[in-house]
Parts: sequence; structure tokens; C-alpha cells
Amino acid sequence: MKIIVDAFGGDNAPLEIMKGAEIAVRELGYEMILVGNQEVIEKVAAENSISLDGMEVVHADDVITMEDAPTSIMKSKKESSMAKGLRLLKEGKGDAFVSAGNSGALAVGATLIVRRIQGVKRCAFAPVIPKDKGYFMLMDSGANVECRPEMLRQFGVMGSIYMKNVMTVHNPRVGLANIGVEPTKGTELYQEAYKLLKASNLNFVGNVEAREIPLDGADVIVADGFTGNIIIKFYEGMAKALFGKFKEVLMKNAKTKIAAMMIKPELKALKKQSDYKEYGGAPLIGISKPVFKAHGSADAKTFKNAVRLAGEYVKRNVVELITSEIKSEKDSEEEDN
Amino acid sequence: MKIIVDAFGGDNAPLEIMKGAEIAVRELGYEMILVGNQEVIEKVAAENSISLDGMEVVHADDVITMEDAPTSIMKSKKESSMAKGLRLLKEGKGDAFVSAGNSGALAVGATLIVRRIQGVKRCAFAPVIPKDKGYFMLMDSGANVECRPEMLRQFGVMGSIYMKNVMTVHNPRVGLANIGVEPTKGTELYQEAYKLLKASNLNFVGNVEAREIPLDGADVIVADGFTGNIIIKFYEGMAKALFGKFKEVLMKNAKTKIAAMMIKPELKALKKQSDYKEYGGAPLIGISKPVFKAHGSADAKTFKNAVRLAGEYVKRNVVELITSEIKSEKDSEEEDN
Repeated sequence: MKIIVDAFGGDNAPLEIMKGAEIAVRELGYEMILVGNQEVIEKVAAENSISLDGMEVVHADDVITMEDAPTSIMKSKKESSMAKGLRLLKEGKGDAFVSAGNSGALAVGATLIVRRIQGVKRCAFAPVIPKDKGYFMLMDSGANVECRPEMLRQFGVMGSIYMKNVMTVHNPRVGLANIGVEPTKGTELYQEAYKLLKASNLNFVGNVEAREIPLDGADVIVADGFTGNIIIKFYEGMAKALFGKFKEVLMKNAKTKIAAMMIKPELKALKKQSDYKEYGGAPLIGISKPVFKAHGSADAKTFKNAVRLAGEYVKRNVVELITSEIKSEKDSEEEDN
Repeated sequence: MKIIVDAFGGDNAPLEIMKGAEIAVRELGYEMILVGNQEVIEKVAAENSISLDGMEVVHADDVITMEDAPTSIMKSKKESSMAKGLRLLKEGKGDAFVSAGNSGALAVGATLIVRRIQGVKRCAFAPVIPKDKGYFMLMDSGANVECRPEMLRQFGVMGSIYMKNVMTVHNPRVGLANIGVEPTKGTELYQEAYKLLKASNLNFVGNVEAREIPLDGADVIVADGFTGNIIIKFYEGMAKALFGKFKEVLMKNAKTKIAAMMIKPELKALKKQSDYKEYGGAPLIGISKPVFKAHGSADAKTFKNAVRLAGEYVKRNVVELITSEIKSEKDSEEEDN
């Protein structure tokens, strides 16, 4: 397994990215290609005693920042570490590409450099998020602000394949995020997507009200990228707000402070478990090779988790499974006509 | 103050509604008009020792259920307690109307029977929700699935008046729920609404990412009804999921169970404080008389809180303030032309 890494993507690059890559080499036995300014990488490695064993460095002059326009990856920033990493993936120099950098640029670059799977209308960021029991996949969480019904149907197909093969969920339940359970709820986009999902051979459980999403509404939650992004960010904010409130309660007086000490390890574990960022990264599902987005604020351990997930995505042949599913749908559609 | 109450709206009607009305009479000194089946009301009152002092009963034959189509209020269900209550409000028989029944029917009935304030494009459900410090108003939380930019601007205007006058927030910050802070983020609806809000004389703080909404993003969060409904229901689900997880942690072993006992009152208070339903109800802002929606699952205390809020809405002259603001906007627009 060889993973190509954008060493200069994310808030904590390159140090935490390099540390994460080092852990991945050591713990997972993967080989890595670090893409980025070679001089800086070597300097940071030396200063922080990071071993570059098992890693190859491929020099890139430039960096895409969070402020750069997504399309800059094809123009002014085509010599960036992200663009170069995607080209290496395209050329088959590694099995997967992982970046903690600018999401918009990553979606544009993956689509235009690596290309989508044939027949896939749009690729989507699909993070796996803790729910009451286990995890759900949210798709799309922000790559496509405007969607058409057929895109939402495909999100369901691709998410289902991921949850089944990577997360080993038996017969994943696919639900459509909506404002009520009736098929007539929501905008025209959602009403039409409901019909398409209903007619598919997915285990479609219908509309899922947002209240049920963090409980156990479905294993795959389908949404347009605007709604999905609202959901994932609200999840993050709510977790932060509520843990903050809990902390206030626990620090209230001498008695509660004693109680706090008694449950400290359990509470810490829960906080971690409720933090979807801990889980690592989100695949950009629909691209013809594995591309993963690590959270922008990823530290070494989170980044290593993203690398691990990317490895699973490769091992479980998710790209091949989606390719063949989309192709067989198309074939049977043509037979019908 | 005389409040008209839909005695047969909501999951716990009529018992909890009647109990709530009784508390409102006793604690707030309001007069009430209970609308619904007179025989049943009198029977329930007798069986549960509910005093009908300070209450007038107005008979209505029929009830709108949660399954009825919103438009039924104007047709097959025009003799329902909700329809009749709205007509009493229209005729000036009371100062405000409160119902825990079918939201869609309430929005349609309020719009077509009581009518919107002149110049207001759409009315909106606008619950007040606990955030990290204080409360924010979410507008729209579900009355309008499809919106135009001008509607979102008006939501900002009306929400700002409410937060200033009823919640006594000085110079309320108005934010647009969005997927990023830049003015170019989101769908065309959000990009256009941003421009209109920016050009208004509101204290507009720009786009607010969903992550910041439960923290302290703004005092008024403007959204279309689809997005707003996703936000409020996700809020409810996340609170439920996280409190459930906390409970699991606290019940884990003998040590954590002791800690749990030590923080039980504080935790209970926090749970209540995080439950937006406790707060009572949501005004249907934009209607020419005060119409309040109590949560469908409202118990006596929650319903009483909704009645109290409706009373505040009347006392603070919210309808008059919105009417004059919308009129002055229109006048200055005509001057400009």
C-alpha cells in the first residue's frame, strides 16, 4: 500500500501531517509519498526527529491556502502540493491520495485531474459520523451546493457500498434527510429524489427527520451539499456547546468537582467518541481513484486515521464496486429502453 | 389579557392544554377562551378537578389531526377548534391565539383567516432556542419550504424586532445560516439574501456557519424553512443523543453511579435548560395578530409557557412594531423611486 500525502494541506501542516505519516508507516506498514517543499520537509523532519523511512519526498513549489479559490488548482496553483499529489495518483504512482487542505480545491482537482467514475454525476464528501449506536455516513457533506435528484440517488448507491464494504454494516439503511417522513415533504428536489430512491434496489427507509439522524435514523443519510454541510457543522457546534455546558455543571461547586474527578476518564472517552474528526477523514466518493479529505485541523493521530481509512478504501475495492454498480444500472436502463 | 386556546391541538390535548390554561389563569392572571368540544371539556375538567374559573368555553365540533392536510383548515375542517379559534382572534374576541396542533394547518389558517401584516411576504415560525449564552431566534423553522431572498431579509427584520422587544437583547445581531462566511457561499438564494441583509439597517453580522449557531453566532438566525427545520430538529436529536450518552457514562459502574448522584440536580437543570421545548412556543411572526405554536408534545407547564410568551408578544406590541417598520421601509422605497 502506497499513500500519497499532501504534506502542506491543513492548519497544522507540514509538522502534524509528517508526524501522522510517520505513525502510518510504523503502525500500518504503508509506504508514503510526501508531496511538498522538499527543503522544508527535510528541515522539519530533522528538527522534530521525524524519521523519513518508508517515505519518498516529491517536491512541489507551491501551496493552496484555505483562501484560494477552488478553481485555482487548475490555474495559478497547478504547481501546488495538492495538484501535484493528484497528478501522481492519476499516473498510478500511489494507491490513494490524502489531503487536509482546501476542500473546494480538492473536489475540483480530483474531478478534473483524477476524474469521476464513468456514469457518476457528481463526487461527494462523505464523512462517517458517530450516532447513538455505531456510525452513519453523510453524503454529500458539502461538495455540491446545488444538486439534481439523480445525484442524490447516486449518493445513496455509493454510500451504501461504502458502509457495507468498509464499515461492514449488513444491508445498510439509506435515508433521505428531510423535514418530515411523508414522500411529499421537502422541496421538489427532495420529492423527486424520494421517488428515485424508492424505485432503486437500495434498502431505502424513506425520509429521515433531522431529529433521528444522530439517534439511529439510517446508516447512510443522503442530502444535498448545502443541507449536509449545515448538518455536519451543526453537529460539531452542538457537541462543543453541550460538552462546554457539562463542564460548567461539573465545575459548579466542591461537590460537583469531586464527581467530575470520578468520571473524568469516561467523560474524556465520550468526548472523543462524539468527535467525528477523531474518526479521520472523508472519502471523496465517486472519483475513479481513492481521494480522502482529512479535517483541516487534523493533528498527527487524526491524519494517521485518515491514511488508515484511505487504505481500507483501497483494500475493499470501493472504486471498483461503485464502477460496476453504476455500469450495471446503466446497462439495465438501456435494456429497458 | 385574554388568550384564545385551541383546547384540542397537540398530542396531549385536551387534558394537558386545559391544565396549562388553568395555571396561566392562576399564575399570570390572564383570561382564557377554550375552543373545543364543550361536553368533553366539561367532562375532563370535572374528572381532573380542573377549575374553569376565568375561562370561557367556545364549542367547536371538529378537530384537525396531525395527519390532516394543511389546507383542510379552510375546507373539510373549517369547524375545527383551530379554525374557530383563529376566527375568534380575527374578530377581536381575544388578544392572541395559542395552539399545539398541526403546524402546517396553523400557518395556512393564520395566513388565510387572520391574514399577514400588510407588506409581509411570508409568515414564519420563529422559535427561541438556547445557545451557549442566552437564546437565538431561528426564523424560519419550517413554515416556508421554498423562499425568495426578500423573504429572508424580512425574516431578519421581524426576528430583530422580536429579540429586541420581547427578549430585550440590545441591538440584536442578525446572521444568515450558511456553509461558509464569505458572501459568495451557498445557493443563489443565500447569495442574494446576503446582499439584501447587508444593505439593510439591521445589525447584520454576515453568514454564520452552522457550527457557530449553538455557540454564539448571532441572536437571530435567518434561514429558509427547509434548512431551519433541519437545524431545529437536529438540535433536538443531538441533545437527546448526547444526554443519552452521558447517562450511559454515569451508569457505567459503581464509581460513576456515585458521581451521578452527586450531580443529579445540576444535570437535570441542564437538560431542561437545553430543551428548547421547555421554553414554550414559537410565534408565527408576520401575522397581523399574535398567533403562537406550542410544541406538539407540550405538557401543561410548557403550554403555560407558550401562553405567557403570547402575552409578552401582545404587551410588547410586536405586531404594531413590525407593521410600522415594514411600512416605513416601503415608504422610503417609494421615495427612492
